[in-house]
Amino acid sequence: NTGIDCISSRRIVRLPGMIDVHVHLRDPGQTHKEDFASGSAAALAGGVTMVMAMPNTKPAIIDRDSFQMAKECAARGARCDYALFVGASLDNYRQLAELGPRAAALKMYLNDTFSDLRLDDLTVWSQHMEHWPRHLPLCVHAEGQTMAAAMMVAALANRPIHICHVAKKEEILLIKAAKQRGFPVTCEVSPHHLFLTSSELGRLGAMGQVKPPLMVEDDQRALWDNMAVIDCFATDHAPHTVAEKRSEKPPPGFPGLETMLPLLLTAVNQGRLTLQVTVIVICARQNRQGTIADQPLIVTRGQQNRQGTGADQPLGWSDLEDKLHHNPRRIFKLPEQPNTYIEVDMDETYSIPEAPAHSKAMWTPFAGRAVAGAVKRVVLRGEVAMVDGRVLATPGSGRDVRELQPLLPPPPAVQPETVVMP
Amino acid sequence: NTGIDCISSRRIVRLPGMIDVHVHLRDPGQTHKEDFASGSAAALAGGVTMVMAMPNTKPAIIDRDSFQMAKECAARGARCDYALFVGASLDNYRQLAELGPRAAALKMYLNDTFSDLRLDDLTVWSQHMEHWPRHLPLCVHAEGQTMAAAMMVAALANRPIHICHVAKKEEILLIKAAKQRGFPVTCEVSPHHLFLTSSELGRLGAMGQVKPPLMVEDDQRALWDNMAVIDCFATDHAPHTVAEKRSEKPPPGFPGLETMLPLLLTAVNQGRLTLQVTVIVICARQNRQGTIADQPLIVTRGQQNRQGTGADQPLGWSDLEDKLHHNPRRIFKLPEQPNTYIEVDMDETYSIPEAPAHSKAMWTPFAGRAVAGAVKRVVLRGEVAMVDGRVLATPGSGRDVRELQPLLPPPPAVQPETVVMP
Ligand SMILES: [Zn+2]
Ligand SMILES: [Zn+2]
Ligand SMILES: [Zn+2]
Ligand SMILES: [Zn+2]
Ligand SMILES: [Zn+2]
Ligand SMILES: [Zn+2]
Ligand SMILES: [Zn+2]
Ligand SMILES: [Zn+2]
Repeated sequence: NTGIDCISSRRIVRLPGMIDVHVHLRDPGQTHKEDFASGSAAALAGGVTMVMAMPNTKPAIIDRDSFQMAKECAARGARCDYALFVGASLDNYRQLAELGPRAAALKMYLNDTFSDLRLDDLTVWSQHMEHWPRHLPLCVHAEGQTMAAAMMVAALANRPIHICHVAKKEEILLIKAAKQRGFPVTCEVSPHHLFLTSSELGRLGAMGQVKPPLMVEDDQRALWDNMAVIDCFATDHAPHTVAEKRSEKPPPGFPGLETMLPLLLTAVNQGRLTLQVTVIVICARQNRQGTIADQPLIVTRGQQNRQGTGADQPLGWSDLEDKLHHNPRRIFKLPEQPNTYIEVDMDETYSIPEAPAHSKAMWTPFAGRAVAGAVKRVVLRGEVAMVDGRVLATPGSGRDVRELQPLLPPPPAVQPETVVMP
Repeated sequence: NTGIDCISSRRIVRLPGMIDVHVHLRDPGQTHKEDFASGSAAALAGGVTMVMAMPNTKPAIIDRDSFQMAKECAARGARCDYALFVGASLDNYRQLAELGPRAAALKMYLNDTFSDLRLDDLTVWSQHMEHWPRHLPLCVHAEGQTMAAAMMVAALANRPIHICHVAKKEEILLIKAAKQRGFPVTCEVSPHHLFLTSSELGRLGAMGQVKPPLMVEDDQRALWDNMAVIDCFATDHAPHTVAEKRSEKPPPGFPGLETMLPLLLTAVNQGRLTLQVTVIVICARQNRQGTIADQPLIVTRGQQNRQGTGADQPLGWSDLEDKLHHNPRRIFKLPEQPNTYIEVDMDETYSIPEAPAHSKAMWTPFAGRAVAGAVKRVVLRGEVAMVDGRVLATPGSGRDVRELQPLLPPPPAVQPETVVMP
């Protein structure tokens, strides 16, 4: 008997702040699709406390001036923490290195793309991979053969490489082989490639266009079968308006920030993914309004020194925490966000709405899907940033984590209200 | 005074038999374009004593039955020695390994091609690269990015790979970097990429279509600038009739066997390539008919133990001998052809004819080009196989060198008529 006054059998789980290493916030330049304020609100609603924003904006982020412009947009608008990518162009490899320490990572577009960032020539790839500092992360949009080619050029440059949005069996198997042979390659997978296949294209029509495209079930199964090869989950949140998606030439991309965690939590409930079970809140206290408490009682079990905080744990991380917090931090060398965590209700079931509330996209390819698992509360650097779908964090309250890093204090000793079970 | 009765200042050079590791002889199935008898006659006329025939015939050579069929065609028709490729298909990787020891090499078509041999899926690439025995050669048609991808898959399979017809700057530079890092990669370059560029497409029209295509001068220059990175010259002899090349859908490819050596010898004369100068016949004796002798006097200089034979030499090989004899032998593990050599006249100048005499193609993209350097005589396993453009070797006299290999005798002590200068 813990003396806890349980009024609910709901399992509330506290997780570290989720980190999404691949989002398109369309700011500057296409803020009718999204901007830092709306995109970071969607992030918080989805349990994401840190986003890494892609550089294919208008203008593209390819030099000091455009990087400065994006930083100003982000500083004004962001409600969650962030870092900003810079993009490789045909001739900017010399200028980018100086921006490196303040950028999320270098992004190279090696397949057909939707901006002026496409790079075809292996010599240009080599120049970027040689010049971008080896200790800083480098990400590639590179599908199929192109992915293998990018891995080769990275190997010749003797540097790590991160593969964006792996979607095909041939890709995940090649990455697996490369990891087994010791090549320093990491990868991410997007929820839509885990939870949708090309069989949905009948239902989705032109709305279903995305790059890489939705794949066949054999590819989807290979992703699930090789979960240990996947380093990160990342939304590739790519908002376009409904009108744009229904137009003659629909642009590729799905919004994803508000739906990723419900989908992944559902997979946890189905036993397809694992969660660190030692941080389950096994019952929730009623607050004065009779709703789930703002300060739920957290009961940890099975690991004595587990504090249920956002602080790093030495062992025992599982799929969600690894792929949305620890691996992103390790691969992208991101600082810990102190006093930052999220709480999810593993037992709340609902249908994903037609139009999630915060992104300007106002649609989702997952509309109508039954999920079990809801993001209830987000605490970002000690402040409640989101609760029950209401985003409390204001535009401009988010921080550029690359600017924080040199000043980053040692992780504070956080004291949440916990009871440790033997 | 060597006591030599010189009647000519012509430099007759004796070279080992040239080995062309990449020819399409269209046999079986498209013998109106070429067959083993005509293609091997073109080879001998061009100073090539051994050809390696590609598997994209009709049918394609992808299993035991088709391999046997090709062997029979070759055994009946070939006038020079040969080995036969097998081709990778979507599902034949298990069956091919048994054919390996008797095949020239495995060929994988990884870009768009003109047969049912195209392979798209990296998993299929891996299966072939894992199953084909590591000590046997494996060649890829893989351009640009695809080349880099193929190198990665080969690296993961921990095996050597040979890149066909390198044509672009980005390709040769990546191969250079890979060699510097110790990756076991080798490559070949075709004469048309050394001697033609896309600037000739105006003149050539649709006849100029070839895969890989003719490239810009910057690419061409990179090949010449990185001559040390090129392991082999290979014609990619791909004969089509004039009517086919002038048709609505001209098939890609050039004939090349009869023109490669004159073009390369011209480059030697221009100082763009090197020859082993120690084997120059500095004067030729008149025979009874007043023409260049069947048995020219060979004068070697600068290297005491150089015998001027086709036998391997320990040191001092230069571009032509390396890239058309020694490297092909090493990379493809080919036996020495005993008593085999060719003689070329470095001083004979002429224009390449509209229709070289032996290939059924009856055209060449090099028509009208002034060259300096003619193949005068070919001795194949002790027999004069070609002299002054007349092919004496009969169909069926050529041997499958893979069948000879287990029985290969030790290289005989050849005693050509030589005078060693101090
Ligand atoms: Zn803005
Ligand atoms: Zn992408
Ligand atoms: Zn993206
Ligand atoms: Zn952490
Ligand atoms: Zn035949
Ligand atoms: Zn080819
Ligand atoms: Zn070819
Ligand atoms: Zn030799």
